[in-house]
Amino acid sequence: MEPALKKVVLLAGGVGGARMAEGLMRALPDRALTVIVNVGDDDTFYGLLVCPDIDTILYTLSDRIDRGQGWGVANDTVNGLNVLRDLGAPVWMKLGDADFGLHIWRNWRMSQGASLSEVTEECASRFGITARILPATDDPVRTRLMTEKGLLDFQNWFVGERCQPAVREIRYAGAEEASASPQALAAISDADLIVFAPSNPLLSLEPLLSVKALREAVAASHAPRIGVSPLIGGKAVKGPLDKLLADLGQPGGAAGVAARYKGLIDGFLVDSGDFNDIVAIEAGGIKVHATDILMRDPPGAERLARELVGFAPTLGTRA
Amino acid sequence: MEPALKKVVLLAGGVGGARMAEGLMRALPDRALTVIVNVGDDDTFYGLLVCPDIDTILYTLSDRIDRGQGWGVANDTVNGLNVLRDLGAPVWMKLGDADFGLHIWRNWRMSQGASLSEVTEECASRFGITARILPATDDPVRTRLMTEKGLLDFQNWFVGERCQPAVREIRYAGAEEASASPQALAAISDADLIVFAPSNPLLSLEPLLSVKALREAVAASHAPRIGVSPLIGGKAVKGPLDKLLADLGQPGGAAGVAARYKGLIDGFLVDSGDFNDIVAIEAGGIKVHATDILMRDPPGAERLARELVGFAPTLGTRA
Repeated sequence: MEPALKKVVLLAGGVGGARMAEGLMRALPDRALTVIVNVGDDDTFYGLLVCPDIDTILYTLSDRIDRGQGWGVANDTVNGLNVLRDLGAPVWMKLGDADFGLHIWRNWRMSQGASLSEVTEECASRFGITARILPATDDPVRTRLMTEKGLLDFQNWFVGERCQPAVREIRYAGAEEASASPQALAAISDADLIVFAPSNPLLSLEPLLSVKALREAVAASHAPRIGVSPLIGGKAVKGPLDKLLADLGQPGGAAGVAARYKGLIDGFLVDSGDFNDIVAIEAGGIKVHATDILMRDPPGAERLARELVGFAPTLGTRA
Repeated sequence: MEPALKKVVLLAGGVGGARMAEGLMRALPDRALTVIVNVGDDDTFYGLLVCPDIDTILYTLSDRIDRGQGWGVANDTVNGLNVLRDLGAPVWMKLGDADFGLHIWRNWRMSQGASLSEVTEECASRFGITARILPATDDPVRTRLMTEKGLLDFQNWFVGERCQPAVREIRYAGAEEASASPQALAAISDADLIVFAPSNPLLSLEPLLSVKALREAVAASHAPRIGVSPLIGGKAVKGPLDKLLADLGQPGGAAGVAARYKGLIDGFLVDSGDFNDIVAIEAGGIKVHATDILMRDPPGAERLARELVGFAPTLGTRA
């Protein structure tokens, strides 16, 4: 039996990130997990900053999540949004009433001078979450998509347009100027395992890694670094990744995703059925653990997390 | 049959103000009614401006009101407030989810540069209200109470402390510096009838009349000006008026209220049972219409409004 890992960092965004976080939280000792979260999906609605990736992780780890849809609060109502509709406001972004409670609180605390990192940690603590949750940066980084319908903000394309307009190019506005969260940098340099969640690389992990100091810290880490494929049989478990890669003319499949992380990961969890990907990834110098990577429910996520933790020591550490 | 009144102004605040507004809206031709509303109860919660008197009138006239309690939206939920409680925020002010929708929208529009008057008119229009609703001023006027527990903001005393701490003095902070709404001033000078709602004089109408230009416009009007007693048998229909007058050592009863409006009203509607008040008020030079002044439901409010409108021509106009 390996000694338990005490400092695990998960890089995460989206529903896949939240499910992996839940699996790791269940598999690891209390307070061993730090989740560093993408902020590229953040946007402002009616003057309120909304952080969908942070919120999905907060709701998932506090068991508030609507498990059917993977985001939002279970059994939430939409009385506030209905009034906003009556008042003529655009309401394509589905914000529930409990959701609004969090957004109101976050904006209130930030108007008093708290940083996004501070309010996120405060919320996690109030929600009784035993993992640490850190935004990648306290500065705005915004994913924008140049599409056949023009340049769209992420949520506008993702929710408003249901991912339909073909994408020509993706930009992470603000990433060059953004400072990495110092707590996130410290967590990466202290980590004894770094995990890349099965999140969308283009929309979740690359906006996060586009903050230069974060990418450099991951590249410089001596800890084993393991990714989990977001694709099974070339198809996204959830979300538009396969379509996006095709739109952009970029390599698909688990091997395509692993190649994007070259120099940043040492191992990759791939679905057992993806033979060709497994061969290609190992040929590229990344070790593969092949298994059933679909997280159907929290026990399934925990099972995958335990396999991932067991895979880590086989990768050794780098000089 | 008198010709219908075309320009009626109601000075209003609180639940009594909203009920009188509803009665007048039903009794008068469409668009004949302008309600000028107290803003002294307004306060900021979690960074959001909340305008309880304006909102109660908006909800009542759009038939959204919770008729059981007289304020708030019928069948509203409190999922947002429950999250704010979980996050450690003070939640003694009962703000429902539909309520939050309006507050979010108002703050968003005002952050874009709209005035309180503009957002109030926009909301009334979106809610399908055929009366005009105007805040007394776009500037902050805040009712504060010097109590046995120190100086309290209005909502803190009214909701947070349930009106319990004895009141020594009432202040309308900001009233001296506040500019009257130009639209409200124009409505008063154009009015062919001015009505003082059966609102709390200390907490609703006097903060409104403490804006000097508004008081002067009412004093200068040639139209008949009619008040409605908020007290029946010396007791408030709703709210703390009788207790407040006693705390402050000021005259109670319908006659006590009528005397506060001396020089501003020509007639007063008093409950038929309040014989002594009727005699005292008429002795003071204010004509009385004695009737059943309790507005039990919207048809009852309409009946009272029709009596009030019928009483107006008997008062004549002043030189």
